[in-house]
Amino acid sequence: MSLRGFGSDNFSGVLPEVFNALKEAAYGHQPSYGEDSYSQKAIQDFKDIFGEDIEVYFVYNGTGANILAISAFTRSFNAVICAETAHINVDECGAIQKQTGCKLLTVPTFDGKLNVGLLQNHMHGFGEQHHSQPNLISLTECTELGTVYTPEELKEICDFAHAHNMYVHMDGARLANAVAHLECDPQDLTVRAGIDVLSFGGTKNGMMFGEAVLFFNTSVCPNVKYIRKQAMQLHSKTRFIAAQFSAVLKDGLWLKTAGHANRMAEKLAKEAALIPGVKITQEVQGNEVFAIIPRNKIEVLQKECFFYVWDENASEVRWVCSFDTTENDIIEFVNLLRKELI
Amino acid sequence: MSLRGFGSDNFSGVLPEVFNALKEAAYGHQPSYGEDSYSQKAIQDFKDIFGEDIEVYFVYNGTGANILAISAFTRSFNAVICAETAHINVDECGAIQKQTGCKLLTVPTFDGKLNVGLLQNHMHGFGEQHHSQPNLISLTECTELGTVYTPEELKEICDFAHAHNMYVHMDGARLANAVAHLECDPQDLTVRAGIDVLSFGGTKNGMMFGEAVLFFNTSVCPNVKYIRKQAMQLHSKTRFIAAQFSAVLKDGLWLKTAGHANRMAEKLAKEAALIPGVKITQEVQGNEVFAIIPRNKIEVLQKECFFYVWDENASEVRWVCSFDTTENDIIEFVNLLRKELI
Amino acid sequence: MSLRGFGSDNFSGVLPEVFNALKEAAYGHQPSYGEDSYSQKAIQDFKDIFGEDIEVYFVYNGTGANILAISAFTRSFNAVICAETAHINVDECGAIQKQTGCKLLTVPTFDGKLNVGLLQNHMHGFGEQHHSQPNLISLTECTELGTVYTPEELKEICDFAHAHNMYVHMDGARLANAVAHLECDPQDLTVRAGIDVLSFGGTKNGMMFGEAVLFFNTSVCPNVKYIRKQAMQLHSKTRFIAAQFSAVLKDGLWLKTAGHANRMAEKLAKEAALIPGVKITQEVQGNEVFAIIPRNKIEVLQKECFFYVWDENASEVRWVCSFDTTENDIIEFVNLLRKELI
Amino acid sequence: MSLRGFGSDNFSGVLPEVFNALKEAAYGHQPSYGEDSYSQKAIQDFKDIFGEDIEVYFVYNGTGANILAISAFTRSFNAVICAETAHINVDECGAIQKQTGCKLLTVPTFDGKLNVGLLQNHMHGFGEQHHSQPNLISLTECTELGTVYTPEELKEICDFAHAHNMYVHMDGARLANAVAHLECDPQDLTVRAGIDVLSFGGTKNGMMFGEAVLFFNTSVCPNVKYIRKQAMQLHSKTRFIAAQFSAVLKDGLWLKTAGHANRMAEKLAKEAALIPGVKITQEVQGNEVFAIIPRNKIEVLQKECFFYVWDENASEVRWVCSFDTTENDIIEFVNLLRKELI
Repeated sequence: MSLRGFGSDNFSGVLPEVFNALKEAAYGHQPSYGEDSYSQKAIQDFKDIFGEDIEVYFVYNGTGANILAISAFTRSFNAVICAETAHINVDECGAIQKQTGCKLLTVPTFDGKLNVGLLQNHMHGFGEQHHSQPNLISLTECTELGTVYTPEELKEICDFAHAHNMYVHMDGARLANAVAHLECDPQDLTVRAGIDVLSFGGTKNGMMFGEAVLFFNTSVCPNVKYIRKQAMQLHSKTRFIAAQFSAVLKDGLWLKTAGHANRMAEKLAKEAALIPGVKITQEVQGNEVFAIIPRNKIEVLQKECFFYVWDENASEVRWVCSFDTTENDIIEFVNLLRKELI
Repeated sequence: MSLRGFGSDNFSGVLPEVFNALKEAAYGHQPSYGEDSYSQKAIQDFKDIFGEDIEVYFVYNGTGANILAISAFTRSFNAVICAETAHINVDECGAIQKQTGCKLLTVPTFDGKLNVGLLQNHMHGFGEQHHSQPNLISLTECTELGTVYTPEELKEICDFAHAHNMYVHMDGARLANAVAHLECDPQDLTVRAGIDVLSFGGTKNGMMFGEAVLFFNTSVCPNVKYIRKQAMQLHSKTRFIAAQFSAVLKDGLWLKTAGHANRMAEKLAKEAALIPGVKITQEVQGNEVFAIIPRNKIEVLQKECFFYVWDENASEVRWVCSFDTTENDIIEFVNLLRKELI
Repeated sequence: MSLRGFGSDNFSGVLPEVFNALKEAAYGHQPSYGEDSYSQKAIQDFKDIFGEDIEVYFVYNGTGANILAISAFTRSFNAVICAETAHINVDECGAIQKQTGCKLLTVPTFDGKLNVGLLQNHMHGFGEQHHSQPNLISLTECTELGTVYTPEELKEICDFAHAHNMYVHMDGARLANAVAHLECDPQDLTVRAGIDVLSFGGTKNGMMFGEAVLFFNTSVCPNVKYIRKQAMQLHSKTRFIAAQFSAVLKDGLWLKTAGHANRMAEKLAKEAALIPGVKITQEVQGNEVFAIIPRNKIEVLQKECFFYVWDENASEVRWVCSFDTTENDIIEFVNLLRKELI
Repeated sequence: MSLRGFGSDNFSGVLPEVFNALKEAAYGHQPSYGEDSYSQKAIQDFKDIFGEDIEVYFVYNGTGANILAISAFTRSFNAVICAETAHINVDECGAIQKQTGCKLLTVPTFDGKLNVGLLQNHMHGFGEQHHSQPNLISLTECTELGTVYTPEELKEICDFAHAHNMYVHMDGARLANAVAHLECDPQDLTVRAGIDVLSFGGTKNGMMFGEAVLFFNTSVCPNVKYIRKQAMQLHSKTRFIAAQFSAVLKDGLWLKTAGHANRMAEKLAKEAALIPGVKITQEVQGNEVFAIIPRNKIEVLQKECFFYVWDENASEVRWVCSFDTTENDIIEFVNLLRKELI
């Protein structure tokens, strides 16, 4: 590989601000397991953005965040409804089945987004002992297809869920990209829309490690610390996750970096779309571009600049931009595309 | 609190060498999920110390390491034998029961160490369908009571286990302290003794996060990567765990820091033992000191310098030294003890 | 309700031969947990039909049989492929997820039957740590839609599975109906086709309780007795399951009763098809009839003679015949249909 | 073996009254899964004895009953406290760990009975995230050592549990023997003592199969039917469990049979105690006798009349009487003991 890739936003390193925060926290003694001053500060930083009536739990990674969030609201006889493309369905090696015992009810979609019409198909079997009882909807913002739910769309789903005594979990590994895209208040996409619990992404947006789980519905929180420990997601030196979050939340850094990644993706999509043989398949609303390109060119392109094939049958690929993607990266890659495809 | 504490070795921060390694790795693109160059290097660093015929898996924390190691060798109908004081028994919120489904058969000990005589009590029920089938012994080096198994003691346990078609897991969260104490080859305590799988500690010995699981018995390894992912222990930006390990393994740094912590513990025990009312309860072989002190003095001492009560009934406390404990820390704490107890 | 229903084959009672066998076994002492003489005899009765190289385990019910069979061949990071209509997917309240931790990969079908073409869609992700690893195909004979796989169809699936290092489980809750339909040797549909493990139905075919799991691939059997006990499927007074099986296996009784139920279903379908407004939706090969009937007549019919709605959207219902369904039952029900629909 | 054994109360067959009830229910159609008239009647029969404010769930076996009861009140991060000798600890192949994920905290006892003093040792770690949270005490009545809790003893434990926000489960596989021994109202040992949930034994007291779980604390009941199905404990032809229960509950039959078994055990103990070399080790309050006998005579005795060794080290054996043990059985066995030991 000669060019920096578009494989994933976790191919990037860390933000300089994150690194400086780690440096500041690196030495000296602090109580462990969340009793440190950094954790207290970072929790307040989250409250400043999402409201005071929340509870915040730090975990290691996105799968851990999703499992913690979902475990808190489910028993093993429950079913969780999600899009067929959901990360919890396709990319977590069955963690949800193993960790929660729940059944996933998956919904085929065109754009990765659930809606009330699609959800209706799974609204049956309530009260029947032979059927896993649906009690949680898990959606992803931005979706795994790079699309973004609006606050109104989210509210409709949450209202629907709550009307059926169900909860809503948001996998927000790329929530920053959605907020940056909509230029809205982060609360509009979460607590005000009715989301019960949020996996708030850190690693994909410039952190070294660590995610946070934000409970807007705190009724289940008395159990959460035990679930986290038993799920192997309690870090001893908590300060090192907390300090990073304080850095990315400060002065809207998380949104600036996400906005940058979004713009790079938009630019890439716009330029690539002009190349014959490239067909952009999803509206680019976050930092991901999905495109159908000639099958016989994929391998040679990957060798120069790595990215993943999304759908082998359709010859569809995924290009992900990150906080450190540069205009030059885009230009070079588009030139490469041109060279190979034209 | 005015003095730095003796609460745990995870109250400390990170080693300067670790921090520099993180800095070096911080920027630029690297493939994720173990495909990066740092991971390849760190794995080789482990092989240089523990032998070429091993497999190395990076995870987030000690509980994750223990669960990965034990899951690889067990089915839910198995029993795992360990000391009553084992971390997997008392400090992981039932992670082993939840994650593996196995039953723990716990062995009371005086010093945290198993031996063949004690293990014999659990050597029954083989082949009986009503009984969880013992197939793994989990021991800790150094033990949770700060004592150290010799290579001969380990070999006797491993031979015994293998003669019963059982495996042996070593929780080596503080293996460095044991090696430093014995001044032996790390292989003597592990692969040569017959250990099948090792949780190799990082966080307690100066890392920011991350542990490694070393399989000396690699027969189960085809499954391990899936178990790790499903156990939420696969870090995306693996380089940041790997780079830290390369730093601590380089030029024996891990043993130098552990040796320092051991010496501080030894010094603390020696000085404290001279104070009336202090009774050291375990031989100090690692970086931990266990002592009975007057019950009515515990709280006032903790306020000045934090440490944990180990056994409330016995008024026994635990003092842990770490890589950054200084002679001055010891002097000040001993002076505090003198002031309060004499 | 005035008429006997077509709700399920488990609405019926027991066969007289089964009852007499229970009577013969009812009194006196026998060792428990499988050491009794009845169990030894019944196992031999199965071997006489399915071959000597099998292992037989008695369990309580169909879900227990399926879970035992599948657990024996899977780890929690595996995926199990089945038809969307499979009992393990829709009617066991998530037992497979809870008990095995495995992910279900479901295949939409028209007639409840898998085939190699449909299976191909799930043949990916092998070796990738983010994906549950497919290693078992579970199919049902007769299917939940009353259709029957031929020996050739089964062999093709088994060959395909084995070529991918996967195993095949047959849910044979109604295997008797399939054998009776095809008038073939039971081995043709099972061991000779390459099936690895079979849930052999008892309760739906005239027994009071009890099912059997037959392992044709016995490589996993050393674990099975522990899995059964831990899955709460080991009956203490095993003689009472075993004696029933000896009764139904004797002189082909299980096939005679199934053949009778099949003929009743065939008759019902034939007669009902003549009634305007009734559309038979699946070929009737076993003891089940699927039909679309006028939506507004369902409730009034159910009041007279109970049956289940299969697909509410399609106004499709299911009528199941059992060993004790009489010609008169059919005549009366058809008359009822005529009365209400014409 | 020439004599009928004292191996277990599950070596016996069924009561004639049970058999007649099965016969009466054997034929004709009934709705399945608990909708049948027999189930409704049997539930009322239980209410007539234990009070109207209970919920009753039928399951297959004792392990299933215990798991259903405990699952209903626990999450995987909880700990369950029980005697070291408890069936859930020693005889269920780790079902509790696998099915609930909970940790067992076991209490050594002399006579199989818990008490508040013994329980105190486990009353710590509440609120600490590293520790499984104790929330249920499971006790057995009669105990596995044949001893019986009085109503007062049970009340003291229940009050203690409830004062700590914990629940109490009674494994009543042999509750009948306890009630018969104390000649008390069954409510005295259960609902009035404060028991939250009871596993009510059927199989060991003359039934063919089937147990019942009685919830006196019905707050968790909305979940129970799903837990039962997912735990593979829902019988389709429920009438056959229900009809048996109605038979044994009628006119106190369950207590008459248990009382008979108790008397046989008492007689056996009294006679055996007179034989040199026999030492009765537990007070005989139920239907079990524990005795130390000469080690070198065990095998020869077992050949004539089977029983189990309870504690190999102590040369302690267990003799269990059942509803169909006769005076002649006792006389012949005592004669055998005399012949071999004197």
